[in-house]
Amino acid sequence: MADKFEEALALHEKLAGKLTIRSKIPADSKDALSLLYTPGVAAPCLKIAEDKKLSYTYTGRGNTVAVITDGSAILGLGNIGPEAGMPVMEGKCLLFSEFAGINAIPLCIGTQDVEEIIKFVQLTEPSFGGINLEDISGPRCFEIERRLRDTMHIPVFHDDQHGTAIIVLAGIINALKLVGKTKEMVQVVINGAGAAGLSIATLLLEYGFKNIILCDRNGVICEGDPAMNPAQEKMAKRTNRNHTTGALADVLAGADIFVGVSAPRIVTQDMVRSMASDAIVFAMANPIPEIYPNEAKEAGARVVGSGRSDFPNQVNNVLVFPGIFRGAIDCHASDISEKMKLAAAVALAAVAEEDGLKEEYILPDAFDKRVTLSVAASVAAAAAEEGIAGNPLTYEQEIEKAKSFMIR
Amino acid sequence: MADKFEEALALHEKLAGKLTIRSKIPADSKDALSLLYTPGVAAPCLKIAEDKKLSYTYTGRGNTVAVITDGSAILGLGNIGPEAGMPVMEGKCLLFSEFAGINAIPLCIGTQDVEEIIKFVQLTEPSFGGINLEDISGPRCFEIERRLRDTMHIPVFHDDQHGTAIIVLAGIINALKLVGKTKEMVQVVINGAGAAGLSIATLLLEYGFKNIILCDRNGVICEGDPAMNPAQEKMAKRTNRNHTTGALADVLAGADIFVGVSAPRIVTQDMVRSMASDAIVFAMANPIPEIYPNEAKEAGARVVGSGRSDFPNQVNNVLVFPGIFRGAIDCHASDISEKMKLAAAVALAAVAEEDGLKEEYILPDAFDKRVTLSVAASVAAAAAEEGIAGNPLTYEQEIEKAKSFMIR
Repeated sequence: MADKFEEALALHEKLAGKLTIRSKIPADSKDALSLLYTPGVAAPCLKIAEDKKLSYTYTGRGNTVAVITDGSAILGLGNIGPEAGMPVMEGKCLLFSEFAGINAIPLCIGTQDVEEIIKFVQLTEPSFGGINLEDISGPRCFEIERRLRDTMHIPVFHDDQHGTAIIVLAGIINALKLVGKTKEMVQVVINGAGAAGLSIATLLLEYGFKNIILCDRNGVICEGDPAMNPAQEKMAKRTNRNHTTGALADVLAGADIFVGVSAPRIVTQDMVRSMASDAIVFAMANPIPEIYPNEAKEAGARVVGSGRSDFPNQVNNVLVFPGIFRGAIDCHASDISEKMKLAAAVALAAVAEEDGLKEEYILPDAFDKRVTLSVAASVAAAAAEEGIAGNPLTYEQEIEKAKSFMIR
Repeated sequence: MADKFEEALALHEKLAGKLTIRSKIPADSKDALSLLYTPGVAAPCLKIAEDKKLSYTYTGRGNTVAVITDGSAILGLGNIGPEAGMPVMEGKCLLFSEFAGINAIPLCIGTQDVEEIIKFVQLTEPSFGGINLEDISGPRCFEIERRLRDTMHIPVFHDDQHGTAIIVLAGIINALKLVGKTKEMVQVVINGAGAAGLSIATLLLEYGFKNIILCDRNGVICEGDPAMNPAQEKMAKRTNRNHTTGALADVLAGADIFVGVSAPRIVTQDMVRSMASDAIVFAMANPIPEIYPNEAKEAGARVVGSGRSDFPNQVNNVLVFPGIFRGAIDCHASDISEKMKLAAAVALAAVAEEDGLKEEYILPDAFDKRVTLSVAASVAAAAAEEGIAGNPLTYEQEIEKAKSFMIR
């Protein structure tokens, strides 16, 4: 790992920025300038002045997403500030480009005040087709995202919450097929009641899971606990309906599914042994998981996923955010709704299922070319069905549109 | 012109955005991802967290400029709003790329409130090496730029004001050599007392011109006139020291230099005939100038410039802003000072003089490859001399650094 860090540092210094912004066509003659800039550029300006929606026709807005952070929760490194968050935001932006042909712009902003962040993001609306919030600490991130979704007319998506939730749901959908259980019958334990954990619980509930228990570092989350933040309070009313209390180990006994978005090595092999037969374990703390996949398997877990690329079934957000945004911005969706998220998870699960599911293969590889297209088309179709697409597209139409950006 | 507009409209629709944002190297393997993104990306993040200045080493900040407008004064089209301003901002950004190898990001913001604009721009600071304000209406633009320069630690430059001023000064420096007059002896009349006119007056005063009169649509600007805005009041105390009043035609009689940043066809041939011998005329209203260059020449003007590319001596901002920003961001200047602007004007004049000055050639061609390098190096050297460069560079060092971005 130390070698990898040195190599990454040297590469970042050599590149001095991982993105490059260029003109699509050369501006190397007076004639070219007169079309791309004055006086010709006045023509699209005047058209858009008459009808703002034409900004999707004459500018890059419909293929441009902002990746915005305040630097408060960068990776697992904590509140290291906006300047220090930039390498991650540039990385995210290059993934948008490489995986979906989207122009993504990193904005690391100089405030951690919730009201200032909300105002800032609102003011960017005329420039972008969508907003990807990134690495903003909880519980602030809930209010920021909620208020932005309520007030903006373009999609706002906090990937740390929903990207992870969508992949976990996709993985669980396929894992349940392998073990022959149904969403209605299983007991799910989620460890980590921050942004990711709460979003996973929300999406599993939306999909139809009935029995979910969340834990945080103090143990089981239960309605009435005065230590909860408002987002946790809301969730406590929808989960743990038996009002169980205790520690993670207590509720893991007999559970069918463990989902960890928490801390290194806090699940033991004995805890996995105490789970129901054919247990499903997603241990996503990164880089050191709650329990290493091989240890979980040894202790009897049947299907195991992690956040790491060196084990099977990697929960990698790159499986989701490129396709989610590709689909949402191509159809000018006004939001990324729960239905669109569910559609993304189902599409993702279907891509892996097409190849035949195995215990070591419940999620597609990060570089699987089918993923972005399939997720994008499902998301666009869901938006059209829900009536929140300014430019409704069928599944097939979005496949064609997405390809036009991705194959260059 | 109508044909050109149709052609520009079709091109903008075909391109659907003139910029493309891509990764500098492919992210096509797990190994590449582990360096460009997690886990490797944590290494530069942690370095920057220790020392924010390292954001210039490990991210694109040192080669990234924001082009920001509120849509209030787009070209000569007026207040057409931020969405409609985007084609111009994208055009400006592609010029930054094509002429200086700078990554420029267009931001059209959804407010025209001065305080909100100032706050927004301040919050972008961690992401950028510099800020180019564009097409913001006067007199609001003065306060916005002044307060941003006072509070931000990166350069803030309102190109509509200063870019034009720098080229006009360069042109006048060379024109005076041709006609054998000096800056101390000439009478300058500037028509248009908005952003550009006031900035031209300021820079000419800084350079050492003694006799300047500004006019606006109501005639000569004179100390004590209650109709002036604060910026004009300030300027009225530094110009027109004889307290002349009257119309443009009155003060043009006997003047040596006319600078128009005003309105189409408001200068007649008779007015040019009334000027001193060897008159210098810059008629920069666009696309229709205050007087057409051929008409001005016929009426006796010796050196004539305009904003148009189809006449000699085009005052084109692309001669200045790429080099100004290249130089300022390469040396991590905290500001673009008056001395840096003067250095840019002198450098620009020198490039044309190298080729031998002629009445039809007092400014370099827009595509002259020497211009950006020469302006950048002069600007960086001026910043170092003034002590406002975080990374001081000599003229020669900046030539090398600028080339490394521009020759790819």
